[in-house]
Amino acid sequence: MRTWEKNVRTVVPYTPGEQPKFVDVIKLNTNENPYPPSPKVKECLEKMNTEAFRLYPEPACDTLVDALAETYHMDRDEIFVGVGSDDVLAMCFLTFFNSGKPVFFPDITYSFYDVWADVFRIPYECQPLDKDFRIVKEDYYRENGGVVFPNPNAPTGILMELSEIEDIIRHNQDVVVIIDEAYVDFGGKSALELVHKYDNVLVVQTFSKSRSMAGMRIGYAFGSKVLIKYLNDVKYSFNSYTMNRPALELGKAALADPAYFEECCGKIIATRERVKKELSRLGFSFGDSMANFLFVTHERISARELFEALKIKKIFVRYFNKPRIDNYLRITIGTDEEMDQLLAFLKKYIQEN
Amino acid sequence: MRTWEKNVRTVVPYTPGEQPKFVDVIKLNTNENPYPPSPKVKECLEKMNTEAFRLYPEPACDTLVDALAETYHMDRDEIFVGVGSDDVLAMCFLTFFNSGKPVFFPDITYSFYDVWADVFRIPYECQPLDKDFRIVKEDYYRENGGVVFPNPNAPTGILMELSEIEDIIRHNQDVVVIIDEAYVDFGGKSALELVHKYDNVLVVQTFSKSRSMAGMRIGYAFGSKVLIKYLNDVKYSFNSYTMNRPALELGKAALADPAYFEECCGKIIATRERVKKELSRLGFSFGDSMANFLFVTHERISARELFEALKIKKIFVRYFNKPRIDNYLRITIGTDEEMDQLLAFLKKYIQEN
Repeated sequence: MRTWEKNVRTVVPYTPGEQPKFVDVIKLNTNENPYPPSPKVKECLEKMNTEAFRLYPEPACDTLVDALAETYHMDRDEIFVGVGSDDVLAMCFLTFFNSGKPVFFPDITYSFYDVWADVFRIPYECQPLDKDFRIVKEDYYRENGGVVFPNPNAPTGILMELSEIEDIIRHNQDVVVIIDEAYVDFGGKSALELVHKYDNVLVVQTFSKSRSMAGMRIGYAFGSKVLIKYLNDVKYSFNSYTMNRPALELGKAALADPAYFEECCGKIIATRERVKKELSRLGFSFGDSMANFLFVTHERISARELFEALKIKKIFVRYFNKPRIDNYLRITIGTDEEMDQLLAFLKKYIQEN
Repeated sequence: MRTWEKNVRTVVPYTPGEQPKFVDVIKLNTNENPYPPSPKVKECLEKMNTEAFRLYPEPACDTLVDALAETYHMDRDEIFVGVGSDDVLAMCFLTFFNSGKPVFFPDITYSFYDVWADVFRIPYECQPLDKDFRIVKEDYYRENGGVVFPNPNAPTGILMELSEIEDIIRHNQDVVVIIDEAYVDFGGKSALELVHKYDNVLVVQTFSKSRSMAGMRIGYAFGSKVLIKYLNDVKYSFNSYTMNRPALELGKAALADPAYFEECCGKIIATRERVKKELSRLGFSFGDSMANFLFVTHERISARELFEALKIKKIFVRYFNKPRIDNYLRITIGTDEEMDQLLAFLKKYIQEN
């Protein structure tokens, strides 16, 4: 090892789901939306002026922030935007979790939380979900350096009641509490109203799932003005201009089509509920997911075996080789046609094995 | 102050140049390129498929990395890309400057270096430029935690010879040395060849200046495979997908038009050299800038006065209220027409005052 290597911040990075390059796959492994973005996004792209690309984008991202303010009835000073909700959450960890006390999050949750904690040298403590994969709210009542959890939780899909979330917030008035709502539009209830009641609460959402724009990298957070100010100060200390011009403009265009947004979410919810029934019949069990994925385990055949068998058939789902969940598959809800192909394969495989 | 506020990472953020919203301004304050991006960028945008936006972009940014590899005759494992060179440099600070010893950079330089050092709690020590605003290479021969400087330097525009840069590198084999080449395409010589000779050297460049794509946020770094691997590990611990689909595709399109790139750089260099002569005649003095801006001081009229007078005429230049440079203006090289309007105003103002 060379001397300079001793000064390197070494980390174990997050492993994203595979992004296979060939086209004839059924891709149910990274919770993308099976439907394209709103036609308004296409219209906006067609009108986009490339000459303006020579100029920096708006540092305060006004175009997008104003559109979010209008859509969600918030003040523009209560909104922070970033390069996907991962960027938003990374900035939150960097900004708010500096007490030296451990940050609390569930043991089974979005697997980026411990990665951010590690990269920023933030201590953390995982709170185990109960046997039904539910968050035990009392575990979060002890002294800590901050709280973060997704609602619905990932990869379980299980939704927590707003009243329970408020209980956690009430017991954590001295730290920042982050509610990661990447999947809330598929049947959950947002904690947005709590942002007005508690100045230490951040609600984080994304365009990657319900708005079909994972490829555009747009995430955002709602919080009190004082929280958002701190977040922006750190953002401006990292990169003045994070959102490029197409992200700002196309993000705004997507928000301008609420009917399409609701239609897509409705279709995914309908498909999810149908698939739940079909998978039950095939011997799978799972929690009552309110997200655009299911987290399933089979009564007889191991998750790893199914994962490998599906992959050979070019059906990609997500398998986590981690304690407590190594016999589960996370399956994104695709189109009805994609799900029918998945179900047909599973039915045949289970009969034959 | 609420208790949770005590845990906030407080910072003094970088202040970017103003981005005025009205259109009839002459904008010479943020070193943007006055010419639009290559027509190939427009063609690429017109062909872009918005349906693909529903899918995450390539985590390893292959499209863009491969195009950079081809353009610069590098191996793809020697290239890192980010959301503008600010993102690349921020990641470099976070990854490589962890020794606890002070990082060295010039006292007059890109004013984001001390901001990154502060946000990541990295100690630093500024090395004064000499009276002609030149880097004194011997100042960098002492023990340190890393070295970073722009070449040409900003906001002075002064270029350092490659042999001098190599002297600094030779004396700093135990730390990472970063050469920030945001402005190198306007007449400088890149240190790219030194990347193959020294495994601790990073060369950082951007699409924001010479490729007319500040609004797209694309930056990149060249370095040894081991350096790039460390950088990517930290990047993947921050945000798996930093570059959105348009950035990857349009960046590649811009690289596919070297003739246009050289033409634009040539025009800016020609304008710069002409403006140097005209400004000399008006009583301005300045170093021999090799960037797309000039850093000028007038023999009689204060920089602040000129800055304010120009602003009233909707000509925006950059003024830094900082020690040693508070009587200087940084003026971006615009089109010939824009520079003629600037020169006409300055001539009249100087005659009348």
